[in-house]
Amino acid sequence: MSKVAVILAGCGFYDGAEIHESVITLLALDKAGAEVQCFAPDINQMHVVNHLKGEVEGDESRNVLVESARIARGNIKDLSTAKATDFNAIIFPGGFGVAKNLCDFAVKGVKCSVNPDVKRFVLEGFQAGIPMGFICIAPALIAKVLEGEEVDLKVTIGSDAETATAIEKMGATHVVYSVDNCLVDTENRIVTTPAYMLANRISEAAVGIEKLVKEVLALTRK
Amino acid sequence: MSKVAVILAGCGFYDGAEIHESVITLLALDKAGAEVQCFAPDINQMHVVNHLKGEVEGDESRNVLVESARIARGNIKDLSTAKATDFNAIIFPGGFGVAKNLCDFAVKGVKCSVNPDVKRFVLEGFQAGIPMGFICIAPALIAKVLEGEEVDLKVTIGSDAETATAIEKMGATHVVYSVDNCLVDTENRIVTTPAYMLANRISEAAVGIEKLVKEVLALTRK
Repeated sequence: MSKVAVILAGCGFYDGAEIHESVITLLALDKAGAEVQCFAPDINQMHVVNHLKGEVEGDESRNVLVESARIARGNIKDLSTAKATDFNAIIFPGGFGVAKNLCDFAVKGVKCSVNPDVKRFVLEGFQAGIPMGFICIAPALIAKVLEGEEVDLKVTIGSDAETATAIEKMGATHVVYSVDNCLVDTENRIVTTPAYMLANRISEAAVGIEKLVKEVLALTRK
Repeated sequence: MSKVAVILAGCGFYDGAEIHESVITLLALDKAGAEVQCFAPDINQMHVVNHLKGEVEGDESRNVLVESARIARGNIKDLSTAKATDFNAIIFPGGFGVAKNLCDFAVKGVKCSVNPDVKRFVLEGFQAGIPMGFICIAPALIAKVLEGEEVDLKVTIGSDAETATAIEKMGATHVVYSVDNCLVDTENRIVTTPAYMLANRISEAAVGIEKLVKEVLALTRK
């Protein structure tokens, strides 16, 4: 049985983890018989967005770990306590939270920095050859973490030109992909899929995410 | 194409809609080609629960419609504007929010009262013969709404004796059912499934919810 770490970035696509992508990931992993542990950093969100209006709410403050616990039904741990090598695979669902809380790509683009615990965990996993999946905007995170390393990383966030350009500036190769597929970088053991970077409906996002989960689990056996 | 209203009660199983149940419902409906519109009442939550600790957070206040918008990705409307007869079917995912925000069954049990907009919408749907699905604890809501009506309602919340007894006191018949199934009350066009009243994992909840969605949509054609 594969042990898989799922890293969440809050709860809601404007300021946290994309909820559909997270739940579809958890469901696909559970259907495949994987044992899942969710993690999130114990830090404040960049901000809180009213998802009805799509606008930032005054000075309200919410914690990424506490809000992520909503998606994980309480079964979640502080990422600072996690060791990547305790797992057979690692998956990052998307949502703006990845680019606002786990790193600040949404604000600083190419010059973003990554949360130290996230960076440490991802590097640990990468160096140990643990298969990792990055959904939606999350490929920007792995591109930043591996920036400057001697790695020929291939990822997709779909076809958004601005994001693709930023990813290439960080040293990765961006490949245009459709929402119903996922890109497997076999050499680096990294799988990416566009999901809501392209999806217009939940079932579209699900097709690519289900494929990503399957490919990540297949890599654990190679 | 069926038009289906999905009624949400917040975002998180301790104080709102159960996120997994809600997303699995939305995914199953979209896969079946249904056109979905989410609704929630524009009211404050009963309280806010820290889902990491499982404890109520001081005096923080959150709005049911605004938090539900996280699950609906912003595509949600105030329930007070909804007409049940505009839809071919209606589904209520579960979560404590149903028993705390849509009614107060979690606190008052048999003597609970139902939010006026929820009650009006459900009665409108019932009287028009629109098929309705109630997941997890939500069957308690329909039992309360139909209390005192000349209706022989049959529902399941799984096997929890206390909840089943309360439902029977409100005049419905409770039937013990397993998590992987759903109960179809053909006469009243109401479908119920236990989901996280019984499920130990997300894939268990999904089996019953996917069946419920299928049965609700089948009723729209009868």
